[in-house]
Amino acid sequence: MAHSKYEYVKAFEREDKLLPNTWIVVRVDGKGFHKFTKEHQFTKPNDITALQLMNHAAAAVMKEIDDLTLAYGQSDEYSFLFKRNTDYYSRREVKLASVIGSLFTAHYVLAWSRFFPDKPLTKPPAFDARAVPYPSIENVRDYFAWRQADCHINNLYNTSFWALVLKGGLTENVAMKRLSKTVAKDKNELLFSEFGINYNDEPEMFKKGSTLVKELKPFTKESRVPIKYADPKYPVVRDDGPDHVIQEITRQETVVTELHCSIIDEAFWNEYPQAVQ
Amino acid sequence: MAHSKYEYVKAFEREDKLLPNTWIVVRVDGKGFHKFTKEHQFTKPNDITALQLMNHAAAAVMKEIDDLTLAYGQSDEYSFLFKRNTDYYSRREVKLASVIGSLFTAHYVLAWSRFFPDKPLTKPPAFDARAVPYPSIENVRDYFAWRQADCHINNLYNTSFWALVLKGGLTENVAMKRLSKTVAKDKNELLFSEFGINYNDEPEMFKKGSTLVKELKPFTKESRVPIKYADPKYPVVRDDGPDHVIQEITRQETVVTELHCSIIDEAFWNEYPQAVQ
Amino acid sequence: MAHSKYEYVKAFEREDKLLPNTWIVVRVDGKGFHKFTKEHQFTKPNDITALQLMNHAAAAVMKEIDDLTLAYGQSDEYSFLFKRNTDYYSRREVKLASVIGSLFTAHYVLAWSRFFPDKPLTKPPAFDARAVPYPSIENVRDYFAWRQADCHINNLYNTSFWALVLKGGLTENVAMKRLSKTVAKDKNELLFSEFGINYNDEPEMFKKGSTLVKELKPFTKESRVPIKYADPKYPVVRDDGPDHVIQEITRQETVVTELHCSIIDEAFWNEYPQAVQ
Amino acid sequence: MAHSKYEYVKAFEREDKLLPNTWIVVRVDGKGFHKFTKEHQFTKPNDITALQLMNHAAAAVMKEIDDLTLAYGQSDEYSFLFKRNTDYYSRREVKLASVIGSLFTAHYVLAWSRFFPDKPLTKPPAFDARAVPYPSIENVRDYFAWRQADCHINNLYNTSFWALVLKGGLTENVAMKRLSKTVAKDKNELLFSEFGINYNDEPEMFKKGSTLVKELKPFTKESRVPIKYADPKYPVVRDDGPDHVIQEITRQETVVTELHCSIIDEAFWNEYPQAVQ
Ligand SMILES: Nc1nc2c(ncn2[C@H]2C[C@H](O)[C@@H](COP(=O)(O)OP(=O)(O)OP(=O)(O)O)O2)c(=O)[nH]1
Ligand SMILES: Nc1nc2c(ncn2[C@H]2C[C@H](O)[C@@H](COP(=O)(O)OP(=O)(O)OP(=O)(O)O)O2)c(=O)[nH]1
Ligand SMILES: Nc1nc2c(ncn2[C@H]2C[C@H](O)[C@@H](COP(=O)(O)OP(=O)(O)OP(=O)(O)O)O2)c(=O)[nH]1
Ligand SMILES: Nc1nc2c(ncn2[C@H]2C[C@H](O)[C@@H](COP(=O)(O)OP(=O)(O)OP(=O)(O)O)O2)c(=O)[nH]1
Ligand SMILES: O=P(O)(O)OP(=O)(O)OP(=O)(O)O
Ligand SMILES: O=P(O)(O)OP(=O)(O)OP(=O)(O)O
Ligand SMILES: O=P(O)(O)OP(=O)(O)OP(=O)(O)O
Ligand SMILES: O=P(O)(O)OP(=O)(O)OP(=O)(O)O
Ligand SMILES: [Mg+2]
Ligand SMILES: [Mg+2]
Ligand SMILES: [Mg+2]
Ligand SMILES: [Mg+2]
Ligand SMILES: [Mg+2]
Ligand SMILES: [Mg+2]
Ligand SMILES: [Mg+2]
Ligand SMILES: [Mg+2]
Ligand SMILES: [Mg+2]
Ligand SMILES: [Mg+2]
Ligand SMILES: [Mg+2]
Ligand SMILES: [Mg+2]
Repeated sequence: MAHSKYEYVKAFEREDKLLPNTWIVVRVDGKGFHKFTKEHQFTKPNDITALQLMNHAAAAVMKEIDDLTLAYGQSDEYSFLFKRNTDYYSRREVKLASVIGSLFTAHYVLAWSRFFPDKPLTKPPAFDARAVPYPSIENVRDYFAWRQADCHINNLYNTSFWALVLKGGLTENVAMKRLSKTVAKDKNELLFSEFGINYNDEPEMFKKGSTLVKELKPFTKESRVPIKYADPKYPVVRDDGPDHVIQEITRQETVVTELHCSIIDEAFWNEYPQAVQ
Repeated sequence: MAHSKYEYVKAFEREDKLLPNTWIVVRVDGKGFHKFTKEHQFTKPNDITALQLMNHAAAAVMKEIDDLTLAYGQSDEYSFLFKRNTDYYSRREVKLASVIGSLFTAHYVLAWSRFFPDKPLTKPPAFDARAVPYPSIENVRDYFAWRQADCHINNLYNTSFWALVLKGGLTENVAMKRLSKTVAKDKNELLFSEFGINYNDEPEMFKKGSTLVKELKPFTKESRVPIKYADPKYPVVRDDGPDHVIQEITRQETVVTELHCSIIDEAFWNEYPQAVQ
Repeated sequence: MAHSKYEYVKAFEREDKLLPNTWIVVRVDGKGFHKFTKEHQFTKPNDITALQLMNHAAAAVMKEIDDLTLAYGQSDEYSFLFKRNTDYYSRREVKLASVIGSLFTAHYVLAWSRFFPDKPLTKPPAFDARAVPYPSIENVRDYFAWRQADCHINNLYNTSFWALVLKGGLTENVAMKRLSKTVAKDKNELLFSEFGINYNDEPEMFKKGSTLVKELKPFTKESRVPIKYADPKYPVVRDDGPDHVIQEITRQETVVTELHCSIIDEAFWNEYPQAVQ
Repeated sequence: MAHSKYEYVKAFEREDKLLPNTWIVVRVDGKGFHKFTKEHQFTKPNDITALQLMNHAAAAVMKEIDDLTLAYGQSDEYSFLFKRNTDYYSRREVKLASVIGSLFTAHYVLAWSRFFPDKPLTKPPAFDARAVPYPSIENVRDYFAWRQADCHINNLYNTSFWALVLKGGLTENVAMKRLSKTVAKDKNELLFSEFGINYNDEPEMFKKGSTLVKELKPFTKESRVPIKYADPKYPVVRDDGPDHVIQEITRQETVVTELHCSIIDEAFWNEYPQAVQ
């Protein structure tokens, strides 16, 4: 409706459609969560409730946007995968990133008090967001493998680090030095020999992160079905009969399922082919 | 820390630094607020509380980001101006848009219950965001003039429209036809002759939108100043004296001021030269 | 070597790497060739010599740049296909477009007098260029099909148009009207019934354009091979014998082959699988 | 005209308009001129004829494109400045770069034999090109200062280097070491004390590069002016008189002027204000 002589400034906006026929991944990541997690006293190295809140916000985003087929989260980040031919917001890069980032934030903040009833949100969190196109399924799988490998590497490190500090009584500096140059095997052994921790027994959500897929599930509900007496099935028209019957009908509904499995292994992609469309 | 063979996928990210030596404007705008405002029964055409909540969220963003010098909001949108030489997030377009969009959203959602204590947030709002560079001060001023002209045109229309519907009892369709092809003067007259409304007397916040500027304000606070008895001023060292005195000291602090004036007129820019740096 | 305080201006350049793992097509197209072909009196609608000059320039580009695997030309344009994983100029969009455009131009101008010995180049031609990434083989094939379909549609039209004008004596305006709303079948019939032209018998280069592929061809050359008398094969060291023998050796060399076939049909892609790598 | 089901592939092209209200600089630079200048035995370190050929090609580009107001060249490169509000090719980045690069190349190749009548062009040259927007006049001036400072630094170095090699008989390696860590003053002294060369007396074109500006020059030509006998000035209609007179008329024409002055100093910009529009 609104037109004015100033409108020319809109032309300074850049067109930013992402390449067609590519899979778009949007990743959100907590802004300065080093500080945010401290201020809100998250459990170290993994705060189950905080991770569940992340999963909740991500699931809400998944439900709201039809074209999302897969999401993966760990630490303060979540990645969302669009199907290849999505035309959501005409594939505009900044729209996709900003809208998903904002929606995720809104659900995170709104649900905070439900997940942390005793912990007020003293300073609201923010998430940066980006949208990146990937041209092949292999690239898409490697993207998610990248994030899960990152989860694994960080979690093994953090589990060892905080064991040394919280259980072993080392200062953070000494713990850091102790771990420098160790490889995965060393850390596994350290955890077992010094703290009796079998890393394999750690919660899958910590080791593997969280994966959200969409599934069609049948559901049954009672429904009023009108009776049409002129039907061959009801040959006699009756004035005084009921005008409907109650029947159980079965429909499909899309549900978001949370998993904590390997998404590097082939098996996941075979089991959930709908995750990459 | 984390390195894996999958890391190559990061190279699919695009570098997106905005042109140096330009003023960057980030605008956020409510996603589908047509529906959101209905669901949450905002007053028509202007919900004062909702606008105040927008202003609150925007002021919080202004306070958090030093390099923002000006903000302007109306309806479901807010624009933020960075100073010309900002290096915030290295001027990365999607970072700027997504972080400001997310921060704004977080403050909006978090403060909702304070502004609307009796209205639960049934569905969280989202805001899209964009970042646009402007190369000259004239372009910057025209940008803000564009948004304020938009506010004026829409508000005059909406005020007339809802007067016809809510007070005049017209259907929305008839009201729309009634207003089609009218110019500003016609609407002013209609409001006055039919509803006794002098458009000039409408609240400035509705007609002009809200402008946020930063100002340095002196503030005075009491402060404990330690006494150093070895000072020439206190030549005698005394064991039993106080170790500090309470003094009033004056500092400068940055405050965000909310205005409802014309930002099209020269006067505003003369009065607040710090608004465009 | 050169550093000065002015060097900061280089930062205003935009990074423009094309998405990894995509096939890049560079297309050059004559700038204002409507005028250029008139000024240099090209035969209408197809100037064989001019098309051969285009093919010559394109073949030279193909030979110079290893990563090019396919080229297709028609009218005043030529398209070049890079292999998927090329890192030529780090996949920088403007570098790729400008260098190929410039190289093509240089060969076109340099070879002009050889192709048109009696026609001086009164005004040098220019070609615009662009570089476009395609994420799938199907997109790549459709790209080339697009250009060949364009060749077909235009050539059928132009052949009919110039037959009407040059042989039928119609004015250009009347010829245009005559052809408006005709479909391919109509034009074929018109050519045959009015001018005895069987469109199928037109030269393949006009109907299909020109396709350049690379092939490895064995070639044989005489080569001096030194004799090592200490070899087991030559057990007796002789002072007075020859120090080499002349032998025929066979090597592979890359040659550029020009074709005038359908590149829409499957057959081409089966015969030249190396055309899309 | 041409439409086919394959046309969708055009949508993979990216919109690339450069920011409005900025000054666009297009720079072309010889591709691999290290090798090209060797193969064609350019005089070291400066080949006057080659530089004149560059100037010729650049002047032709300037004449052809109205919106270019300034050009500067040195070594194997040339920069062209568009006026701020140009809409040439809708400010499309790749079009601007590729067309100017191609046009420059065409003129360079076409004029080669005129500048080097005894030196055949054995391998055609190519030029890369780029288009960069600058938002302020200061940035524009600094851009050109950057290129001229580069010319100065390189030319002083190259003059010293080739004096040591060609006149001093040093190997290239020794000459390089000799110059390493020297500053401008050292090189000036070396040239003077060892070779009697006063660097100040070197040709301005070598030291300062070449600058092209546009100027309006009046020119006078004889023109047939028809006589209208019905004019008040010629009251008597005569059948047998001449129907025209020959008159000298004066018009303005745009000429491209070549300069070899400082474009870092204020003076140039004051004398040629039309160079930055
Ligand atoms: N205690 C605790 N900290 C966590 C948890 N999840 C994430 N964090 C912290 C660890 C890291 O300091 C931080 C995530 O690292 P990032 O690389 O994202 O850095 P950060 O968010 O500080 O900065 P950024 O704005 O993303 O560049 O969040 C958790 O469950 N418990
Ligand atoms: N009742 C009421 N509605 C408002 C108020 N402020 C904004 N709105 C509504 C009016 C418009 O329907 C909507 C803003 O228009 P937009 O052009 O931003 O469209 P919308 O947000 O629906 O879609 P979008 O996602 O921005 O494309 O918000 C208010 O104070 N009261
Ligand atoms: N007579 C003649 N004309 C040709 C031949 N090949 C191409 N042309 C002409 C026909 C068209 O007018 C022109 C190519 O059309 P374009 O769509 O490329 O337009 P043009 O180059 O004029 O403008 P542009 O700068 O590409 O937008 O070249 C030929 O073999 N003979
Ligand atoms: N002998 C001689 N050489 C020149 C003259 N002008 C330029 N050159 C040579 C010197 C440098 O090797 C080369 C220009 O350096 P560039 O940095 O542009 O490198 P080059 O063109 O080799 O590679 P590029 O494709 O631009 O990255 O051209 C000249 O007048 N005489
Ligand atoms: O959303 P509109 O229609 O008010 O206009 P816009 O925000 O400039 O358009 P878009 O959101 O599509 O960039
Ligand atoms: O933020 P980091 O360091 O974890 O790595 P990144 O998110 O890939 O980097 P950036 O946020 O700067 O794009
Ligand atoms: O080519 P160089 O090294 O002189 O420097 P440049 O031209 O700025 O670099 P590039 O051609 O890679 O953009
Ligand atoms: O130039 P046209 O009209 O043949 O079509 P195009 O080349 O796809 O358009 P443009 O040159 O403007 O990108
Ligand atoms: Mg990050
Ligand atoms: Mg983070
Ligand atoms: Mg993180
Ligand atoms: Mg919008
Ligand atoms: Mg909105
Ligand atoms: Mg809006
Ligand atoms: Mg074109
Ligand atoms: Mg053309
Ligand atoms: Mg063409
Ligand atoms: Mg270069
Ligand atoms: Mg060069
Ligand atoms: Mg150079």
